[in-house]
Amino acid sequence: MAKRRDRVSEAVIRRLPKYYRYITELKNNGVQRVSSNELGQKMGLTASQIRQDFNCFGGFGQQGYGYNVPELHGELKKIIGLDRQYNMVVIGAGNLGQALANYSGFEKEGFYIKALFDINPRLVGISIRGIDVLDIDSLKSYVGKNHIDIGVICTPKEQAQEIAELLVDCGIKNIWNFAPVDVVLPDDVVVENVHLSDSLYILCYRTGEES
Amino acid sequence: MAKRRDRVSEAVIRRLPKYYRYITELKNNGVQRVSSNELGQKMGLTASQIRQDFNCFGGFGQQGYGYNVPELHGELKKIIGLDRQYNMVVIGAGNLGQALANYSGFEKEGFYIKALFDINPRLVGISIRGIDVLDIDSLKSYVGKNHIDIGVICTPKEQAQEIAELLVDCGIKNIWNFAPVDVVLPDDVVVENVHLSDSLYILCYRTGEES
Repeated sequence: MAKRRDRVSEAVIRRLPKYYRYITELKNNGVQRVSSNELGQKMGLTASQIRQDFNCFGGFGQQGYGYNVPELHGELKKIIGLDRQYNMVVIGAGNLGQALANYSGFEKEGFYIKALFDINPRLVGISIRGIDVLDIDSLKSYVGKNHIDIGVICTPKEQAQEIAELLVDCGIKNIWNFAPVDVVLPDDVVVENVHLSDSLYILCYRTGEES
Repeated sequence: MAKRRDRVSEAVIRRLPKYYRYITELKNNGVQRVSSNELGQKMGLTASQIRQDFNCFGGFGQQGYGYNVPELHGELKKIIGLDRQYNMVVIGAGNLGQALANYSGFEKEGFYIKALFDINPRLVGISIRGIDVLDIDSLKSYVGKNHIDIGVICTPKEQAQEIAELLVDCGIKNIWNFAPVDVVLPDDVVVENVHLSDSLYILCYRTGEES
């Protein structure tokens, strides 16, 4: 029933993970059925917003019944693309790279960090939760031999652009960028940023708004 | 000249850190002056968008001259609230909490992690880059004795709501939440979320869009 449309707005895409989180929670609590009103109340959205969002993907509910929770969960999973496995490499085995490698939660969702890469000879050769830190010079040959879907950039900002280009050069078209800089890449490359300091600045701005 | 307005839209607020990043870069490169056209090209925004955004704060440019970079930098710094120091406590001294404590970059921007808190007796008592991990039971008395602006939640999602309420109960009104759950708090509390898995889901969705 659900199908991916090409032109889903940025705002709707940004809400997808939130829908998935809430529906997963309901499913885990054994809830079978939810109305758009109930879901809206939980999520701080209006019922009509929810119906409109879901219509972007073909719509799932039945008038007068609402949504079947396990079904909706399955549909959202497919829409987001969580019905398969993703292999990742992390570039930069510093604090953040190591923290990501140490976190086992992503694996439960199908995201596997297969290796970390660094230039620092003190880090190359160690392993984190069984995941090897390899020399950045071996990235291309590694990616040639292993199927890698996502490259994660955890380097300082000065290296981010160069590393992003290297990843693309290796054939990796999906970049999860933690460096506090916007990398510039060809249009067919997907880049998702986690800019921690941007988030902190926004908190900071709001702190002032409230006081 | 610049002043904070109460009703700045979410979208403009979300762009503020990006403006600050780009202007800081220009300033660090010794650039004295930039037009909204040039800035727009760099940032992937239109010149009129930039002028409109800056008008929310009173406007900074001069027709025919553009923006004085050091001045604009100073104004943005004040608007975001980066002209002062913020003290933070991190709750949860696991992988992520430790990675944040190990990162010295926030201090350069005026954000200081003063202590971490945990319930795990194996973590309580250690120190990370000179920052002590204390028992969560001592949080209230610690916050009573030390001026703390921001509480950072790095706990598993199951504990996040309880910890958020505890922080608010201690008088902390600004929460930086890394737990993959939306905490529900009184309206006068500012919450900024970093949902890593949401970000990964969005990357994942886009991966499918491109292929």
